[in-house]
Amino acid sequence: MTGFGLDHLPYGVFSVGDGPRRVGVRFDDDRASWVIDLAAATGRPELDRPSLNAFMALGPEAWHETRERAVAAAGSLRHAVPLADVTLHLPFEVADYVDFYASEHHASNVGRIFRPDGEALLPNWKHLPVGYHGRAGTVVASGTPVVRPCGQRRGVSTGSTTDQVVFGPSTRLDIEAELGFVVGTGSELGTPVPYDAFAQHVFGVVGLNDWSARDIQAWEYVPLGPFLGKSFATSISRWVTPLAALDAAWTDLPGQDPEPLPYLGPGATKGLDIDVEVEVNGEVVSRPPYRTMYWSPAQMLAHLTVNGASLRTGDLYASGTISGPEPDQRGSLLELGWGADDAFLDDGDEVVLRYSAPGTLGGRITLGEVAGVIAPARG
Amino acid sequence: MTGFGLDHLPYGVFSVGDGPRRVGVRFDDDRASWVIDLAAATGRPELDRPSLNAFMALGPEAWHETRERAVAAAGSLRHAVPLADVTLHLPFEVADYVDFYASEHHASNVGRIFRPDGEALLPNWKHLPVGYHGRAGTVVASGTPVVRPCGQRRGVSTGSTTDQVVFGPSTRLDIEAELGFVVGTGSELGTPVPYDAFAQHVFGVVGLNDWSARDIQAWEYVPLGPFLGKSFATSISRWVTPLAALDAAWTDLPGQDPEPLPYLGPGATKGLDIDVEVEVNGEVVSRPPYRTMYWSPAQMLAHLTVNGASLRTGDLYASGTISGPEPDQRGSLLELGWGADDAFLDDGDEVVLRYSAPGTLGGRITLGEVAGVIAPARG
Repeated sequence: MTGFGLDHLPYGVFSVGDGPRRVGVRFDDDRASWVIDLAAATGRPELDRPSLNAFMALGPEAWHETRERAVAAAGSLRHAVPLADVTLHLPFEVADYVDFYASEHHASNVGRIFRPDGEALLPNWKHLPVGYHGRAGTVVASGTPVVRPCGQRRGVSTGSTTDQVVFGPSTRLDIEAELGFVVGTGSELGTPVPYDAFAQHVFGVVGLNDWSARDIQAWEYVPLGPFLGKSFATSISRWVTPLAALDAAWTDLPGQDPEPLPYLGPGATKGLDIDVEVEVNGEVVSRPPYRTMYWSPAQMLAHLTVNGASLRTGDLYASGTISGPEPDQRGSLLELGWGADDAFLDDGDEVVLRYSAPGTLGGRITLGEVAGVIAPARG
Repeated sequence: MTGFGLDHLPYGVFSVGDGPRRVGVRFDDDRASWVIDLAAATGRPELDRPSLNAFMALGPEAWHETRERAVAAAGSLRHAVPLADVTLHLPFEVADYVDFYASEHHASNVGRIFRPDGEALLPNWKHLPVGYHGRAGTVVASGTPVVRPCGQRRGVSTGSTTDQVVFGPSTRLDIEAELGFVVGTGSELGTPVPYDAFAQHVFGVVGLNDWSARDIQAWEYVPLGPFLGKSFATSISRWVTPLAALDAAWTDLPGQDPEPLPYLGPGATKGLDIDVEVEVNGEVVSRPPYRTMYWSPAQMLAHLTVNGASLRTGDLYASGTISGPEPDQRGSLLELGWGADDAFLDDGDEVVLRYSAPGTLGGRITLGEVAGVIAPARG
């Protein structure tokens, strides 16, 4: 009951010793954890590759057919390698990375922390899923150490000196517990992807930690948004859970008011009932519920492309920090510590994000975890 | 004297008929314009590819050696194909795309237009080169039609109705005349690239038009920056001018006050003396001078990586709109029309950006142009 049964079979890229990287699925039985070598099990050349991209580009029919073969191979442990014997890698080449801001509780908390006298939400927030592009080249696999970033921040005002700028290692290094959506099939430039084409384009989901240096971000982000405060690293799980494994996890969104514009609904309002756990140095500090998000995965995709922006295989878009309504459901240390200076990460701290969801066989599946240890700043 | 003599030889990707794409350089003699087939002329397998990436990844020594061979081949017209017989393509696969905001005149103009009662420049502007990530997957080659984007914008307030949101084709479609820098060799995650390593990493420059839907951008951009207002298309020239062809174009920046932090100077303050022409429907509407930019190319690179963000071959970073101090030197229609509603592009309008610089033989070189026609919104 590890959450990696026949109802899950998430995809990853593995190698054994000095052998080539190739695509496999994880399967646990009563005795051990295994990786099924999918190229061997199916004969598909697109699976004999160092990333999932070629396979994901084939589209839903190939995804479905391959999953059926994976179930059969796992059931009989054909082409199975012990998980303990493999190395896991970044599962896909990230094309473009977009990060949304889709939790009302998170956006409201941040608004209250930074603008205690203003409205918690900005005027556009309930009209569109606010998002921005992040750095695709620094998306790394779970387990990769995260080097504390250096950068500019506002100095503390002392006496007559104000607006002083200092440079050095970030002193407010934070996490953002998120869910990421992986695009399998692309789209044509100039033509929007409607919300009901979500399952035609999205291959699956990953766990995602959008590491954030709050002090760097606060100084740089007006008017063009976060840049170096985020671009030093984004960690994703080494397993990609295919949409088919989440069939039982769809649920209604909490509700949207005002009613979104037609391109964002009304058929796009299904969320996902995924539980998240945030663990810092072995202690669970928060349990954000993904089902409390305001904007749905299909709405984010429709918004991302409504201006005609094309999709490519390997595009990754993330939910933004998942925060629920309760204090112990917040997905960032900024919110958990309500802005206190000592709320952030020290060198050597380890953060692990864990995710689970209802499976299609009545139990629960365990999505890939996202782990990272903070390494000291360099130079 | 077309600006494509032996002192220029910009790189592009071409094909003839149904033949494969491969790398060439452009050379004009008294009779005609030619593309020198560089794979044939040099025997380098990295040039027999559909993009410049494999060649750019080889680094400065290979770039230098190949340029010497290209000069020799062009001088004797070996492996030359008439330019009129080839099709030109996007010259490289864009890894990450970053757009800066490095013109003081542009940033001040925008500040005055949108915040007439406030300070023209925001507090961080002279401390760091403000920038953000754009969408790499929608960077297109010069000549690609640009479909007018649809999106949300604030409606006009009428009587009792305020804060109304409307959806439709952008009514304020604009250009941004910019220069783009193309990264050849990557860097290690976690380790900054110092400003004096600029020529070790940057392969060359392209002309760049950062198409912008001002109405979409104005509604969406707080607090995470521009997103759909920019992500529908960014056009670049089909020729990449190598740094070696710009040896005579380096010039001092206009000056920086306050003095930048050590990682941004003092040895990084060389700009480029490149003249830009903005042509709309055949008429030159502006002549922005790149030498008036505040932040230098090396400073933008050092800033981009100071947090440890790694570089990859194919990374593209752009200067932001180039605007000089004079009204006829502004690089966007927003500034040229000072925010007037009728200042923007109609369907069918054609924009061409042209660039020239001092060459190393006493004359001028002509960088690749950036052209695009506005196509009507779809759907």
